[in-house]
Amino acid sequence: MHRSPHAVEFSRAREQFASGKDSPRAYLERCIATIAAREPEVHAFVTLGLERARAAADASTERYASGRPLSAVDGMPFGVKDIMDTADLPTQMGNSVYRGWQPRWDAACVYALRSGGAIVTGKTVTTAFAGGETNETRNPLDTRRTPGGSSSGSAAAVGSGMVPAALGTQTLGSALRPASFCGVFGFKPTHGALTLQGVHPISATHDHLGIIAGSLDDTWYVASRIALAAGNPGSPGLDGAGYTLPAARRPARLFVQYTKAWETEVDAGTRTAFDALLERLRSRGVTLLTRRDNARYAELEDAFFGPFIERSTDINAYEMRWPYEQYVERCGAELEQRQHARVARARAMTPGYYTELLAEKAAMKERARAALSEADAVLTLASSGPAPVTRAHTGSRAYLAFATVLQLPAFSLPLLQSDGMPVGVQLIGHAGRDGDLCALANWLQSV
Amino acid sequence: MHRSPHAVEFSRAREQFASGKDSPRAYLERCIATIAAREPEVHAFVTLGLERARAAADASTERYASGRPLSAVDGMPFGVKDIMDTADLPTQMGNSVYRGWQPRWDAACVYALRSGGAIVTGKTVTTAFAGGETNETRNPLDTRRTPGGSSSGSAAAVGSGMVPAALGTQTLGSALRPASFCGVFGFKPTHGALTLQGVHPISATHDHLGIIAGSLDDTWYVASRIALAAGNPGSPGLDGAGYTLPAARRPARLFVQYTKAWETEVDAGTRTAFDALLERLRSRGVTLLTRRDNARYAELEDAFFGPFIERSTDINAYEMRWPYEQYVERCGAELEQRQHARVARARAMTPGYYTELLAEKAAMKERARAALSEADAVLTLASSGPAPVTRAHTGSRAYLAFATVLQLPAFSLPLLQSDGMPVGVQLIGHAGRDGDLCALANWLQSV
Repeated sequence: MHRSPHAVEFSRAREQFASGKDSPRAYLERCIATIAAREPEVHAFVTLGLERARAAADASTERYASGRPLSAVDGMPFGVKDIMDTADLPTQMGNSVYRGWQPRWDAACVYALRSGGAIVTGKTVTTAFAGGETNETRNPLDTRRTPGGSSSGSAAAVGSGMVPAALGTQTLGSALRPASFCGVFGFKPTHGALTLQGVHPISATHDHLGIIAGSLDDTWYVASRIALAAGNPGSPGLDGAGYTLPAARRPARLFVQYTKAWETEVDAGTRTAFDALLERLRSRGVTLLTRRDNARYAELEDAFFGPFIERSTDINAYEMRWPYEQYVERCGAELEQRQHARVARARAMTPGYYTELLAEKAAMKERARAALSEADAVLTLASSGPAPVTRAHTGSRAYLAFATVLQLPAFSLPLLQSDGMPVGVQLIGHAGRDGDLCALANWLQSV
Repeated sequence: MHRSPHAVEFSRAREQFASGKDSPRAYLERCIATIAAREPEVHAFVTLGLERARAAADASTERYASGRPLSAVDGMPFGVKDIMDTADLPTQMGNSVYRGWQPRWDAACVYALRSGGAIVTGKTVTTAFAGGETNETRNPLDTRRTPGGSSSGSAAAVGSGMVPAALGTQTLGSALRPASFCGVFGFKPTHGALTLQGVHPISATHDHLGIIAGSLDDTWYVASRIALAAGNPGSPGLDGAGYTLPAARRPARLFVQYTKAWETEVDAGTRTAFDALLERLRSRGVTLLTRRDNARYAELEDAFFGPFIERSTDINAYEMRWPYEQYVERCGAELEQRQHARVARARAMTPGYYTELLAEKAAMKERARAALSEADAVLTLASSGPAPVTRAHTGSRAYLAFATVLQLPAFSLPLLQSDGMPVGVQLIGHAGRDGDLCALANWLQSV
């Protein structure tokens, strides 16, 4: 385990709340002290709501004292990506178009956590509309480096111990990549399993809620609270949701996904660390299958990492017409070039072409379902190495597209290290079997 | 045809715009004169935006004069149901919770029409959140009667000739029922074919955009403009979308759906008129199949109109958690009892039960697909008779649930009359074949 040494866990502290050795208010004050110490250089938050947070923590403290916590996340301070509506804090989307904008209602995920007693600590920095180039947040483990993006502030806040958990989103790599760079846990569920109501959209097909936390337990409890309390229109919801972490289960077989980025992007330290992990897994009896061992899996990789993946970004562009077309028309100067380019691309597309893309995607999902059925999960990197030393961008997406575009559940676990920095291992599961995947992640984190 | 004698058509007038015999500004002024004459007793609009509409009409007039209209709806005045965001008019959801609320951006459907040159005339009255009991709008053909709901103002505005077309929504019967009661055309596409981005939700599974217009041509052009310009995230879009009305096609076989309401709700005049229509269809060579003729269809009706339909309303309740749960918590006194009841029901449901409901629904859709494949469409009523003489409610839903819950495309055509009032005939098609259904509707309207 190479988790950020600063990261904090909530679920262990919670045991002390019941006994009175600790309290939600005291826990929050420790978080606030960390924010005071680190925020000036990390810039994880756009807005803080500490006085309301303290009042909420006091109410939670009383509930524990009377033996009636509302849920497993009662008293948990959390950060909220600033593309998610909050009724008591502005929601500014990382772009001046929304400067000072104050929603009237919480996004469904925020309300589900709040109604379970969790405490909104503040709004975390995102790239513009969760799809922009970069932002002001710095990696808490080395402030010369990017924290990753677009859920930059959420990962940096968790990686620096300002909060035990934070909400993010992932349309390509926006939750697992920053989790990898900041040395914390990340989870992107099966598409649709956690509702995005009240979250600013990019692509209905590819947007996912993401959870970033200091422990696998906290990751799962946050996801479960949202699943159990928010509803999930049109989807069967989160498999295995509950306030018990799925028991560790050793996978029998894993596909190992290297991709071409292994040769072109990944540094020697990460490669050595990943190969060493594979060796440990083999020694624990896990059968590892690469593309050389399984023709059907190799064919899937070849089909996915070709023109398909390029074309699938057109799905995002097409689905951005609303509301980005209006931003371009009325506030064009405030948008980044990439948003202009996407809207222009969308306008050039026909509904017929988009329908073709959806059909291609459905066929690829079916192909993946069949090919991946021969193993428990896919094991790969959550980023192509440690966080780059840059402020100019938020890192490569090479390892992120597979799970996102195929809408499969995926965890990033802080198991590797290179160049003195953490690198996440990504475990990708079968659609709709998020709880099963969490059980494998629970086993893997202890290897 | 028993269309409202007041209803106006746009597509015919449009031909005069090109020749200079008429103009969008002159057309709008005629609409405004009708509004001035009828609005005091009909109450179709919550808010009017006539000065901006005049400016938009002048711009459209210039485009026609220079031979460059933007689309088939350029210059068309239209009404917008007041649950759809409009950047230049308040959006108040039919409830005091949203009194005076001004969105910053247009809903996708509104923007698509506007960007094609259509003219927002005003916001039309809805029941509370498109799911309330009643409202102040009156039927323009007999103001003692309900106009139907929840898209009450949209249908009343079109039925009185205030606008040639208006946008509505349908979660159970909210577009086709008022179209039937007000003597105009209504269309609810296959679920997902027209985007609802920027429209206040009830149920992601059952919400549909609805188009209400004075002619089938205008209905189709409005739907097509939205389909072609707004995108339709996650869906293949509207089959057959285009600025040509699908050519009339005689159906070979139709299922005739009576339902139990035929005996318990439908008045003698409507029954006589419907049976007379059937006779005309037979005389034109259409084979009509009832449940007595086809065991599989009879089994479908029995399965649908039983406990299934009762349970399916739980889907709506569950999907209302966001944002209605927050309305209940913060503004409970401003909600109707039915909204309180739905939220309470949602809170009592588990994700597992909801997943069961989705599975039941998927199975029923598959059963319907198989059973309905033996005919071109289903023919039934769009309401169980003419508009009731009441202000207390918006009419029975008996004939509306089938197409909505099964997510099938459906038209309401003003072909019948009873008690001196229009009654709509409903034509229900196959999923994803909206254009084919429009071709049948085009034939049927001339019978």
